[in-house]
Amino acid sequence: MTASSEKPSASPVSSGVPKAVVSRLSYYLRELQNLMLDGVGTVSSSQLGRRLGFTDAQVRKDLAYFGQFGYPGVGYRCDELVARIKGILGTDRSWPVALVGVGNLGRALLRYKGFEKQGFRVLVAFDNDPEKVGRTIEGIPVRALADVRAEVRANAIRLAIIAVPASEAQNVANELVAAGVEGVLNFAPVTLSLPNHVSRVGVDLASELEQLSFAVVNSASKS
Amino acid sequence: MTASSEKPSASPVSSGVPKAVVSRLSYYLRELQNLMLDGVGTVSSSQLGRRLGFTDAQVRKDLAYFGQFGYPGVGYRCDELVARIKGILGTDRSWPVALVGVGNLGRALLRYKGFEKQGFRVLVAFDNDPEKVGRTIEGIPVRALADVRAEVRANAIRLAIIAVPASEAQNVANELVAAGVEGVLNFAPVTLSLPNHVSRVGVDLASELEQLSFAVVNSASKS
Repeated sequence: MTASSEKPSASPVSSGVPKAVVSRLSYYLRELQNLMLDGVGTVSSSQLGRRLGFTDAQVRKDLAYFGQFGYPGVGYRCDELVARIKGILGTDRSWPVALVGVGNLGRALLRYKGFEKQGFRVLVAFDNDPEKVGRTIEGIPVRALADVRAEVRANAIRLAIIAVPASEAQNVANELVAAGVEGVLNFAPVTLSLPNHVSRVGVDLASELEQLSFAVVNSASKS
Repeated sequence: MTASSEKPSASPVSSGVPKAVVSRLSYYLRELQNLMLDGVGTVSSSQLGRRLGFTDAQVRKDLAYFGQFGYPGVGYRCDELVARIKGILGTDRSWPVALVGVGNLGRALLRYKGFEKQGFRVLVAFDNDPEKVGRTIEGIPVRALADVRAEVRANAIRLAIIAVPASEAQNVANELVAAGVEGVLNFAPVTLSLPNHVSRVGVDLASELEQLSFAVVNSASKS
């Protein structure tokens, strides 16, 4: 497979670790956090794998990209592995995040509790609509797009979420890059052209359903 | 990599075509649809690839999984390739979809215009909250969870979107499977245990941001 940092599902990330491995780290982290909530202290690779539908070899191989984990005869200490994975993913710190586009999707993302739980805090939102600018939605101030640079610098924001229509996404991305944003999570169904030093992940919600219809059609045609 | 249909980003789909290839089909489709809107009739693999950050060889290799496309010296006819890809993805027909969980995320998904554009039509939503049941949101009727089976059958629904809290997701999934749903798009940050004949795609929005922070951290540490 040729390398490209354009498409999340196709590309190794910049570190050379396959994208799919990094993606699984998130799942391991989530399961370990759930185990800790249940009061579980240690877990084996096969137990962790079983909860996610992976083999124990897969779990060990994925983690081996990042060093030595676990103890013979004990497995992984959940709290320790959570801390290590957070360190790898960069979520051992809190990330201030900007959101651009306070339409239906943007509002839902402002309300989404899952980001903060994993260390991402939306500090400011931006929109073009004069009706929205100056308001506070879900506790987040909505500013004019023209203020992106000032706000991004004032809040030391490195990550931004783009939730604007496809036709506006590239312009918004340009503004964010000019403001110094280093990573963009893009919900607009369009491929952004960005400089190499800016990381990007694209989420195309309709594409997720297309993956599903493909799977259903192909599974049905076999049975 | 071990096979698992549990995790979308890690798994080959049931047909044996790598998940990443199917995912790229969605991107090709979206670019081709944009080209058609711009009045473009034909496109070469290198032009299509360039718009997405892929090599021309990658484009040709991906499409070769599904047959012979394109004409020597001409490239691909956009309308023809759109029709072929839709046929492959199963979106050459309209899919009636059910959505479960009319919270913040569920509401945003009901308002999301991108699904219908690609052939997915949410016909009915479900919630437990008596305040919501019986109402119509974005033109979609909200029914009680207890009515899942009757509604799914009445509307010949094969795909469902789960947008409930993690703690409720498995119960909801069980209901949907019992009702005959064949594919589940799961937004709850939890791994669902489902029978093998049911296809699933998981979307963990916080995980997308984790992929981004990982990329930013690793790109920064190299420079």
